[in-house]
Amino acid sequence: MAGSIYGTIFKISTWGESHGKGIGVVIDGCPAGIALSEEDIQKQLDRRRPGQNRYTTARAETDQVEILSGVFEGQTTGTPISLLVRNQDQRSRDYGTIAKLYRPGHADYTYDQKYGIRDYRGGGRSSGRETIGRVAAGAVAQKLLAELGITVTAYVSAIGPVEIDRASMDFAYAKESPVRMPDPQATERALAWLEECIRSQDSSGGAVECIVEHLPAGLGEPCFEKLDAALAQALMSIGAVKAVEIGDGTAVRAAKGSENNDAYLCADDGIPYKATNHSGGILGGISDGSPLFLRASFKPTPSIAQPQSMLGKDGQCHVETIHGRHDPIVVARAVPVVEAMTAITLADHLLLAMTSQMRYVKKIWETKK
Amino acid sequence: MAGSIYGTIFKISTWGESHGKGIGVVIDGCPAGIALSEEDIQKQLDRRRPGQNRYTTARAETDQVEILSGVFEGQTTGTPISLLVRNQDQRSRDYGTIAKLYRPGHADYTYDQKYGIRDYRGGGRSSGRETIGRVAAGAVAQKLLAELGITVTAYVSAIGPVEIDRASMDFAYAKESPVRMPDPQATERALAWLEECIRSQDSSGGAVECIVEHLPAGLGEPCFEKLDAALAQALMSIGAVKAVEIGDGTAVRAAKGSENNDAYLCADDGIPYKATNHSGGILGGISDGSPLFLRASFKPTPSIAQPQSMLGKDGQCHVETIHGRHDPIVVARAVPVVEAMTAITLADHLLLAMTSQMRYVKKIWETKK
Amino acid sequence: MAGSIYGTIFKISTWGESHGKGIGVVIDGCPAGIALSEEDIQKQLDRRRPGQNRYTTARAETDQVEILSGVFEGQTTGTPISLLVRNQDQRSRDYGTIAKLYRPGHADYTYDQKYGIRDYRGGGRSSGRETIGRVAAGAVAQKLLAELGITVTAYVSAIGPVEIDRASMDFAYAKESPVRMPDPQATERALAWLEECIRSQDSSGGAVECIVEHLPAGLGEPCFEKLDAALAQALMSIGAVKAVEIGDGTAVRAAKGSENNDAYLCADDGIPYKATNHSGGILGGISDGSPLFLRASFKPTPSIAQPQSMLGKDGQCHVETIHGRHDPIVVARAVPVVEAMTAITLADHLLLAMTSQMRYVKKIWETKK
Amino acid sequence: MAGSIYGTIFKISTWGESHGKGIGVVIDGCPAGIALSEEDIQKQLDRRRPGQNRYTTARAETDQVEILSGVFEGQTTGTPISLLVRNQDQRSRDYGTIAKLYRPGHADYTYDQKYGIRDYRGGGRSSGRETIGRVAAGAVAQKLLAELGITVTAYVSAIGPVEIDRASMDFAYAKESPVRMPDPQATERALAWLEECIRSQDSSGGAVECIVEHLPAGLGEPCFEKLDAALAQALMSIGAVKAVEIGDGTAVRAAKGSENNDAYLCADDGIPYKATNHSGGILGGISDGSPLFLRASFKPTPSIAQPQSMLGKDGQCHVETIHGRHDPIVVARAVPVVEAMTAITLADHLLLAMTSQMRYVKKIWETKK
Repeated sequence: MAGSIYGTIFKISTWGESHGKGIGVVIDGCPAGIALSEEDIQKQLDRRRPGQNRYTTARAETDQVEILSGVFEGQTTGTPISLLVRNQDQRSRDYGTIAKLYRPGHADYTYDQKYGIRDYRGGGRSSGRETIGRVAAGAVAQKLLAELGITVTAYVSAIGPVEIDRASMDFAYAKESPVRMPDPQATERALAWLEECIRSQDSSGGAVECIVEHLPAGLGEPCFEKLDAALAQALMSIGAVKAVEIGDGTAVRAAKGSENNDAYLCADDGIPYKATNHSGGILGGISDGSPLFLRASFKPTPSIAQPQSMLGKDGQCHVETIHGRHDPIVVARAVPVVEAMTAITLADHLLLAMTSQMRYVKKIWETKK
Repeated sequence: MAGSIYGTIFKISTWGESHGKGIGVVIDGCPAGIALSEEDIQKQLDRRRPGQNRYTTARAETDQVEILSGVFEGQTTGTPISLLVRNQDQRSRDYGTIAKLYRPGHADYTYDQKYGIRDYRGGGRSSGRETIGRVAAGAVAQKLLAELGITVTAYVSAIGPVEIDRASMDFAYAKESPVRMPDPQATERALAWLEECIRSQDSSGGAVECIVEHLPAGLGEPCFEKLDAALAQALMSIGAVKAVEIGDGTAVRAAKGSENNDAYLCADDGIPYKATNHSGGILGGISDGSPLFLRASFKPTPSIAQPQSMLGKDGQCHVETIHGRHDPIVVARAVPVVEAMTAITLADHLLLAMTSQMRYVKKIWETKK
Repeated sequence: MAGSIYGTIFKISTWGESHGKGIGVVIDGCPAGIALSEEDIQKQLDRRRPGQNRYTTARAETDQVEILSGVFEGQTTGTPISLLVRNQDQRSRDYGTIAKLYRPGHADYTYDQKYGIRDYRGGGRSSGRETIGRVAAGAVAQKLLAELGITVTAYVSAIGPVEIDRASMDFAYAKESPVRMPDPQATERALAWLEECIRSQDSSGGAVECIVEHLPAGLGEPCFEKLDAALAQALMSIGAVKAVEIGDGTAVRAAKGSENNDAYLCADDGIPYKATNHSGGILGGISDGSPLFLRASFKPTPSIAQPQSMLGKDGQCHVETIHGRHDPIVVARAVPVVEAMTAITLADHLLLAMTSQMRYVKKIWETKK
Repeated sequence: MAGSIYGTIFKISTWGESHGKGIGVVIDGCPAGIALSEEDIQKQLDRRRPGQNRYTTARAETDQVEILSGVFEGQTTGTPISLLVRNQDQRSRDYGTIAKLYRPGHADYTYDQKYGIRDYRGGGRSSGRETIGRVAAGAVAQKLLAELGITVTAYVSAIGPVEIDRASMDFAYAKESPVRMPDPQATERALAWLEECIRSQDSSGGAVECIVEHLPAGLGEPCFEKLDAALAQALMSIGAVKAVEIGDGTAVRAAKGSENNDAYLCADDGIPYKATNHSGGILGGISDGSPLFLRASFKPTPSIAQPQSMLGKDGQCHVETIHGRHDPIVVARAVPVVEAMTAITLADHLLLAMTSQMRYVKKIWETKK
């Protein structure tokens, strides 16, 4: 249980290190009969890929995916789907410094404490490249959700001090925005802020929000596997995330009940609706049919080009500068990762919730006896 | 998988409804050889119990726990520990209104959507009484952690607009504070705020923070079972929690890398330490030996004595007032629940992490061949 | 993970020791909407109960079950079902001998090796009373299966050298047979054999067979969770079972392919059928629509009234006689246990298999959007 | 949960079809610090490989393994180990007949019933090539066990009517025997029997036995995860296995308690031992320190060159002959598969059992605070 397997029915098992032979994922439990091609997955990997603009690392990887199993004649067969992305950029180099030093804000020290050994090349398993397996599996989960019309859309809502204007969000623009913000003005201010970060050899935190639409009511299990609890684990498991919020999130602590409760109203035609969605689409851990609203806060990239005080394996402190590729932010590239983890979690809960009522069980099985 | 089982090695299985025969938990996987008595568990249940002051419900329950199995001659035996708390307050009453209405902010509608049937008496499984099983299991986990000197301490950090002053926290005072705040001034202001809420038949949100001390480095699994991801699930699974933060939490999104990185420094005597703890004791999902710092934000109690627009099972909207016991806040009673979920998660990860190195495996088994 | 939790969706968590306060089980993941009463469960427990004739122990227990949660107005609600049976026969006695000795064929030595402590009273957790939790959970699983018309029927097929005559099985008689054999002649010979065992202060092995009818094709997961693999774990986990066979079982090793293959034939009306059922209803780990056929072989009860050489906690060997209640066979009382473990496993796989095809997923969810 | 993931701590996730791009496995939870090379794994794969003599299929595959992750500088790092074997023999051919027919004794019909679609090329996921993932993972498990001196040795004990002579087993000879029997005379008779099978276009069943030596006492969890229950699942999950026996297996049903109990005796020097090992090294589901003894019975290969009555997708019966490669037995090639599944199960239980006592927990963690 090194923790690289996730899910109960729709189970994913990711593997791979930054500078090993490749990165991949095995999906076990995907239902049979979903149309799936390498293009479906490649499209999402391309959104995650580095080197897209100057605010992300220049590492030249094409990250081509190969489907090794589980698909036959263009359809999933119900057996495990194995996806492989070979690492290309494995040029050997001198890792002398990084091999012997624990960098602030990185997992170097903790991996060594846990395992007594670590693959220090490019961060090993704790590298951002680990998210390739998540995004590839997420692409499959999104295909499953799409068959039911469920959509998962993430975007950048904050970079450093810059927040988007929620009153005028433009999702079409978000696809063009180099920082994936659905707001041209905020994008401009964010780019200025990032220039300043780059100039001062620094990096910036940010936030990614995610909206899920057309999700049926009834997903999520009471108690420990509440839908929000599952999503909290899913998003917090993405490297650099330090907070997960559902609906109004931290703002609820200053709210009153009369403000926070989402009243049920009935339209003139008698159709009921929730007047507001402070709950973010989840009540008692179960989806209520309104859109899900999630937010993840990302810490600034710990890799900065400034000299820092590091801990050596020799137990001494050393002031050093880490050379190499540094992203000033991770949030832009994290957008497809947040979508992927959300989609994977929802696919799993959609399948789980099929077993909640005896009349559903009968519906499926009675014809087969 | 109705989601009432939690953990990989230290596994808990909770059960029980608000107005059923009782509430309980079965713990499977607790190591043998830990001293355990009913008093150890009762002590924690007493901290959770309602009716302690006017800011919590007046329900008269003594919540006496009974150990039904797994303990012999005062010690855990390694077999399942079954704990039972009988419900006392089961007076029959007219549930007519609540049986037919979905209250705003409650799980009434979503349970019916999921299961097609719900035990509407007192909220059924979605009642706050469900946390009895968590607190009872948490008491056992805390006994395990205590054997290694690990301490878990939660307290209320915010109620409505009132926040504690972090510069002068007084943990001894927190035990006396009727709202469990480690700050006499904040307590006073919080009480005034709660009086106002009660007067206006309203309720208030708040926040609970938790600090874990003396935790070794090396707990937590990379990827999906990161220690912070596990804790995020654990805390978000508590009813009413809408946000979970680790370390600096949502504040990281406005921070720069140079500010957020915790530099390693060496003392004059050569002993290294982290200059700051923005990471909250976790790096790359693995504990770094510094104290853990967690925060959960709770929404205001949805039960308020005001008339509200509710949805009927008849599909119509009805403006009704729910009579009965209403807590103006849940955070004070949530303090032992947050401690319990944190302790249970750490106990599980402590056991999991024993298997991370071959030299540990050898240490245990070589003497037994 | 002390191993007392079983299942993926339909999950059971059993607990309890022979001479502790009680025995019980929590079922998590049972679908909502199944009619369930204490009588449904009591009926099965009564079949398992000791003291029914002179071939089973005289322990006077009524084993009354109490449903503590998860059922409302006579129906399962989808939340955990907690079932409790109090132990009545807890008279204190002198356990001096048994506390200090490891009996041959019992788990005394291995529990001490594993845990360093054991509840030696009546065998503790390794007692036959542990099966109460299994039978209680099995009664719930049988209710689920009954809604689809699936039946699970076990019987004794062998006791010592006596085997039933498979050509003339009489299942109605099996209910009357004091040894639950569907064969009056075999019953008579088995009783004679047991008299001889009792006279010589000895015990006897035996076998239980189980037939499942009206099971749809398509249950079971390829690879590690094959239906036969799951059933093998389920039956082998019953104390005293030393062999599990599916279909022709061990006889396959002497068979030829042309004999063992079940040819598909078509009736005059064109309806296809399997000419034989050597496979026992499972091909490639998946049910094929024919009846399941399982067999479990039970070792003779290790408790015999003869003097035996035992190992002391002092490391010395001691020849002692264990006094107390001894069953000459366990197979008769094991019949409802085999049915229970089979039913629990099938219920779980029935729920799991609902998620195997995208068209099933659509069938359930499309109406709920 | 398509069932291709196995284990609780030492978790394996296999994937791949007979005529897809490859076969592989991801191992999550292998402790860090075990020396591991591709040669370690290749050695076991070579033992499983077809084409070694005329009694196994002539398929020309070299089955070269590639370690894609989880190993650094020759040692396991604790992160997932991904192993890949590319399929070479993917020559396209006419699958017309097999695509439209369900063969007797094969999983063709059941896969279609379960998934509504199947990869019919060479049996797809239900092919014997699926065991490549098991053997590769087993090689890693064996490395782990070897560090503690535990050995796992399987051999063929029966082929058709030929059984080995247990009184004179020669394990050195078993490596030379073309049918992996530890008995030259039995080998000769088995070869004669197989010639007869080949002549008559038929196949034969057989049995594989497995002995585990130097296993410590204390492995296995009471109740559902008994060591024998886990091994029963592990072996029954191998295609073609129809019976699993532990110790005396099915013979226990005719035994008396006085015969079956393994008496504890003390040697002249006072050292205790078990006089016999009828239990096969497991009591109450927990290893007792004696050698484990397991037996799996394999059905005859269903692929035979005779005309057989098959079921068509058209619902009609068709008498057809399946051309292609047919093994007259599978047991010889199953020997490394049985060893692999045994080793994987033991590795998992070895890690699980580390958490059974609080004093073990203290031993590992106290030094790390």
